[in-house]
Amino acid sequence: MGAITDVPGVLVGQAQDMDALTGVTVVFLPEGGVGGVDLRGASPGTRETDLLDPANQVQKVNAITLCGGSAFGLAAATGVVKYLREQSLGFETPFGKVPIVPAAVIFDLGIGRSDRFPDELMGYQAASQASAKVLEGTVGAGTGGTVGKILGSRQAMKSGVGTASATLNLSLPGRAPLRYTVGALVVNNAFGDIYHEGRIVAGARLESGGFVNTSRLLREGMAQPPSAGTNTVLAVIATDAPLTKNAAKQLAVMAHDGYARAINPVHTMFDGDAIFAVSTGGLPPTSQMDLLLITALGSLAAEIVAEAIQRSVTMSSSSGGLPGLATG
Amino acid sequence: MGAITDVPGVLVGQAQDMDALTGVTVVFLPEGGVGGVDLRGASPGTRETDLLDPANQVQKVNAITLCGGSAFGLAAATGVVKYLREQSLGFETPFGKVPIVPAAVIFDLGIGRSDRFPDELMGYQAASQASAKVLEGTVGAGTGGTVGKILGSRQAMKSGVGTASATLNLSLPGRAPLRYTVGALVVNNAFGDIYHEGRIVAGARLESGGFVNTSRLLREGMAQPPSAGTNTVLAVIATDAPLTKNAAKQLAVMAHDGYARAINPVHTMFDGDAIFAVSTGGLPPTSQMDLLLITALGSLAAEIVAEAIQRSVTMSSSSGGLPGLATG
Repeated sequence: MGAITDVPGVLVGQAQDMDALTGVTVVFLPEGGVGGVDLRGASPGTRETDLLDPANQVQKVNAITLCGGSAFGLAAATGVVKYLREQSLGFETPFGKVPIVPAAVIFDLGIGRSDRFPDELMGYQAASQASAKVLEGTVGAGTGGTVGKILGSRQAMKSGVGTASATLNLSLPGRAPLRYTVGALVVNNAFGDIYHEGRIVAGARLESGGFVNTSRLLREGMAQPPSAGTNTVLAVIATDAPLTKNAAKQLAVMAHDGYARAINPVHTMFDGDAIFAVSTGGLPPTSQMDLLLITALGSLAAEIVAEAIQRSVTMSSSSGGLPGLATG
Repeated sequence: MGAITDVPGVLVGQAQDMDALTGVTVVFLPEGGVGGVDLRGASPGTRETDLLDPANQVQKVNAITLCGGSAFGLAAATGVVKYLREQSLGFETPFGKVPIVPAAVIFDLGIGRSDRFPDELMGYQAASQASAKVLEGTVGAGTGGTVGKILGSRQAMKSGVGTASATLNLSLPGRAPLRYTVGALVVNNAFGDIYHEGRIVAGARLESGGFVNTSRLLREGMAQPPSAGTNTVLAVIATDAPLTKNAAKQLAVMAHDGYARAINPVHTMFDGDAIFAVSTGGLPPTSQMDLLLITALGSLAAEIVAEAIQRSVTMSSSSGGLPGLATG
C-alpha cells in the first residue's frame, strides 16, 4: 500500500542511466484508462497531450510516459509504443492497433551527463518491466530530479520519484456505498522549495548552510535569472472510480493544488508542470451526485500529490554532487 | 497600505443591497490595464473573458466587475459600461469608444433575498463611487459571500471581500533596481473551508459546534450532494509592473496557488473560481530576465491572495443568519 499501483489496473515500470543521471517512468494501464491532463507553468515538453482534450476522439490511453532528458527524452515514448504494439494494445483502427502514450519531460541536463538521454531502448525496457512495485527517489524519470534551483543547480538538492495512495468512501442517500482508490506518482524537478507543515524540508541552499527561501528571495531582490525550461514537476493520478475525459481533466486541475501546498513557488515561468489523470474504472458518471465524487477524488488527489512530493525528496539520496535527504 | 488600490492606477467602487445580501465590486482602471484571466473549477459565470485570450486583439481593459446574483448579476456590468462611456473611456473604434469590462459572478441566492440581483443601476453606482478606499467584509460583491457549504448554507459561515498588497524589489546585474507593487482583491464564496497556518478558521460547522473539516468529510463519506454552481472565489490581481497579456495570464495562473494554500478543497466541481490579473504598468517585458519578474510577481500574488482570503473571513460580521468572525 501507499503506491499508485494500489489502483487496480495500474502498473509502473522504470529504467535509468545512473551515469547520465536520467531515466524513464512508465505508468502502464494494461486494460487502458480514460485520460485527462492539466498543464501549468510556462515551459512544458509533451507529446500526445492534445488527444486528451475532451473534445477529441480517443477515449482511452494505454500508458503515460514520464521522462528525463528534456525534449530529447520524448524519444523514450517511441519505445513504450513499440512494446505496447507487441502486446497488441492500442486504439483500434482498420490497419491495426495504435498505442496511445501521452508523455511529458523534465529538464535534467544540468546533472550527470548532458549528452545522453532516455531513448527508445530505455522506454522499451521501462515498459516491459512494469509491475506493482514502485521504487522511489533517484530512479526512473526522477533519476536526475532536483529542487530549489534559484541559486543555480549547485545549490539545489536531490529529489526524484514519490508515490502515495488513499481510499475514498462515499455514502450517499439511496445509493450503495462507493469505495475507490486514488494513487499519485510524482517526478519532482521543481524550481521552488519543498514544504512540509509550513517549513522548507528541501530546496535552494545557502553556501553558509540552511535554506535561502526562494519565495522570499524573489520578493526581496534576486542575484541572477535562472534559465527557462530547466524545471518541472510531473504527476500521474490514477483511480478506479469511473470518469469521463472531462472528469479526468478536472481531477488533474484539482491535483495541482497539491503542488501549491507542497512547493513554493510553483507553476512558474521556469516550470512546465503537468498532471495526467487516468481512470481504470470504466463507465463514466452522469448525475449530479457524481460532481461530488469528482470533487472528493480531486480533494484527495491534491492531498496525496502533496504526500508524494514529500516522498520524492525524503526518498532521494545524494547523487550528482547534490545532497539528498535519504540515507544509505 | 494593504489594499489593491496601493497599485497606481487602480480604484475600487462597491455597491450593495443589504436586504437582498448581494452587491457589486468594480476594480476601475482609469488609464486602462493589460489583462489576463485564469478560470478553474467547473461552474464559472463570466462575460468578456474571451477577449483576454492573448491571441485576441484588445490589449487593455477599463474595469473588472465582480458581482453577486449568479448569472443575473452580470447585468451590473452594463451599468459599469454605461458609466465608462460617459467618461469617454474604452477601446477606440471609428464609431466611438467601447468600454472593455470583463466580469465574473458568485452565486449568493442562498442568503438574503433570492429575487433581487445586482443590476445596471447598482453597477453604475459602484463604478461612479470608485476611490482608493477599499471596504472589506460584507460589502460589494462579497455582501452575500459564504464559505464551508458542504452541509448546506445553514451550516456555512459569512465571508466577503478581502484585500492585500505587497511590494516587490528586484535587483538584477547590469540593470537598475525594479520596485513594483502587487495588490489583490478577493470575493470569497468558497465551497471549502478557509485555513490559516494549517488550521480551519472559517468553514462548514457541525451542529454540535466546531468545524466539520470538508476535505475529511469528502474522504470518509458524505451526507448529501451540494448543488453545482453555488460557490466560487473571485479575485483581481493588479500590479504596476509592465506585463503582456500572456504574462498577465500567467500571473493569474500562479495566483490560484494562493487559493490552494488558504482554501481546502478548492477548484471543485461546485466552484467557478476565476482570477483576473491586470497591469497598469505600460510596456511589456521581452527578455529572459522578465521571466523572473513574472515568476516573482506570481509568487507574491499567490501569497497576498492567501492573505486577502484570510481578511475576507476575519473582516466579515454575522449576517443573513450566518456567523462571521468580525465583531461589531
